[in-house]
Amino acid sequence: MNVAVIGAGNGGQALAAWISNCGHNVKIYDRNESRVKQLKKKGFIELVGEANFRGFFAKISTKIDEIVFDADLIMVATTAIAHNSIALQIAPYLKDNQIIVLNPGRTGGALEFRNTLNKVGISKKIFIAEAQTLVFACRLIENGKVNIIGIKEKVLISALPSSDTSIVIKTLELFFKCFYPAKNVLETSFENIGAIFHPCVVLFNEAAIERGDQFYFYRDMTSGLARLIEQADNERLAVAKAYGYSPISAKDWVADAYVGVCGDTLCERMQNNPAYYDILAPKTINCRQITEDIPTGILPLSELGKVAGVPTPIFDALITICSFLLDQNFRKEGRSLINLGLEKYSVNEIKKIIM
Amino acid sequence: MNVAVIGAGNGGQALAAWISNCGHNVKIYDRNESRVKQLKKKGFIELVGEANFRGFFAKISTKIDEIVFDADLIMVATTAIAHNSIALQIAPYLKDNQIIVLNPGRTGGALEFRNTLNKVGISKKIFIAEAQTLVFACRLIENGKVNIIGIKEKVLISALPSSDTSIVIKTLELFFKCFYPAKNVLETSFENIGAIFHPCVVLFNEAAIERGDQFYFYRDMTSGLARLIEQADNERLAVAKAYGYSPISAKDWVADAYVGVCGDTLCERMQNNPAYYDILAPKTINCRQITEDIPTGILPLSELGKVAGVPTPIFDALITICSFLLDQNFRKEGRSLINLGLEKYSVNEIKKIIM
Repeated sequence: MNVAVIGAGNGGQALAAWISNCGHNVKIYDRNESRVKQLKKKGFIELVGEANFRGFFAKISTKIDEIVFDADLIMVATTAIAHNSIALQIAPYLKDNQIIVLNPGRTGGALEFRNTLNKVGISKKIFIAEAQTLVFACRLIENGKVNIIGIKEKVLISALPSSDTSIVIKTLELFFKCFYPAKNVLETSFENIGAIFHPCVVLFNEAAIERGDQFYFYRDMTSGLARLIEQADNERLAVAKAYGYSPISAKDWVADAYVGVCGDTLCERMQNNPAYYDILAPKTINCRQITEDIPTGILPLSELGKVAGVPTPIFDALITICSFLLDQNFRKEGRSLINLGLEKYSVNEIKKIIM
Repeated sequence: MNVAVIGAGNGGQALAAWISNCGHNVKIYDRNESRVKQLKKKGFIELVGEANFRGFFAKISTKIDEIVFDADLIMVATTAIAHNSIALQIAPYLKDNQIIVLNPGRTGGALEFRNTLNKVGISKKIFIAEAQTLVFACRLIENGKVNIIGIKEKVLISALPSSDTSIVIKTLELFFKCFYPAKNVLETSFENIGAIFHPCVVLFNEAAIERGDQFYFYRDMTSGLARLIEQADNERLAVAKAYGYSPISAKDWVADAYVGVCGDTLCERMQNNPAYYDILAPKTINCRQITEDIPTGILPLSELGKVAGVPTPIFDALITICSFLLDQNFRKEGRSLINLGLEKYSVNEIKKIIM
């Protein structure tokens, strides 16, 4: 099978090596010329840690058309804020029955991708799916060498519409056994728990980050900050409920998703999670924890809340302050109802569209 | 003249000593029993620094009626959040022609005080005024001993309505030459610049304060935080403009109000203001910089903006987040339009009421 991997970061390189090692023809796109040059020179990607082999790719290029034109499967492993631009770039080269998987989709990824293709008039039968999270916990050691820290046992995935999900999973099963069907893309979207943690931690450490104070992102959690995070999480749960979903709370998720987490409160669980110990805070406020999580996490949750009449005061305050802080119009550029293609619909209509 | 001083903090003790030293009969109220006991035992208040004398008071008590019943002038030197409660407590004892001065009023102090007296049916002729700031820069060394760091040269004051201002100033001139008439209480209210700085600095250092990191409140200013403060200040200026006022910007105010401030940007001016050098951040997020400045500064500015159709997104975000953080309903308990007695009026009607 011909597989295109879009984006050669941590996840993209790991995916490319893994899939090629399963016997498929893998091509890689990245917009960064020097990264492409380095990988081209090396000719393969080495996985170490939980996996241990070399994956050879058929092609790597900064020209996206050369990578996607003959792909049966397109794995999009870029940051979520690039999804819209990727959709625009690949639209002219898409063919019937190609499968596109967003790894991960964050909140509303497949909806935005589908809407962008619709807007540029793509009427071909394209399968679009979003995964809840990346298959691997991994870290790039250097270009061409990825440390696979873990391989997840269960990753939810859904196509848009969800009636396509089984076809997507059947294809992915050629190399991964971890994918389970979510009910639909709302379920994967509401599971974007990272977006609940990240902007709060950065914002309420704003001046400390600017001053260059080093601290641990999760381990140095404080009780007031954790309470704010739980308020934000309550908004996520309330919005999800209005659409008929009951996702796990952030507090329970930390205990469920990781081994050896102690503590009763969210604050204690963040401080005491061994998997979090060494994660340092970003060194600048212009970081993915805001520039990705606000437009592709907090904003679409706030917007879905608006449709359902669920107030999201903390989300809205975060969006407002982050927009001023980074001088970006997240409300307009992010996954608004308009950019998700949902501006004309009610809760019930949205529930039907995704089925 | 009989003068009642309400509140025996820094400012109250300094005022009491100063006024009694001018030959007036001063009585002091404070709700704190041990403070009252200590002062009663000592029998006088010592001023050091720019002033150097002992001021003897006629009476000190935790019973407010004993202090205010025969006062010609009532100087309210409590925190601004206590104004409403003070109004309720003294209402039954008020007599025609008593003068009440809020030192300072913060934003909407006189409006709230007047509205509270109206609500409990006080129809006597009471003069109510608010000062823009305290007359002294001072710091309590111990109970009964105040360091007078400076005596301000110009303090704006206005009565509500402003037609009463000259009567209030004539009385205050018995001991202070620094009072100048503001146009009205909107002018003194819009000059509440502290409210623009304080909550932002605390909030965007929230986790650092909770972790117990020591830092200087102003000197450790960062550029992103200063930009947020300027955005908040732009909202204050826009609301003021809608009512016909052009107060000085926070950035210009720092340079104007202090000597030896260098720097072009607000950030540099905050970092380089000698008067700010030694001011440490509060040790808890449950501090006056939020609990006073949100309900008596940011909230009334946001509410006045609402009447004028001026959006105040940063103010609203600050109110929302601080309310969740401290689990207080600032929108309800603070100086809302209802608590200011302005809920039924337009901009033009408000401008008339205060005249």
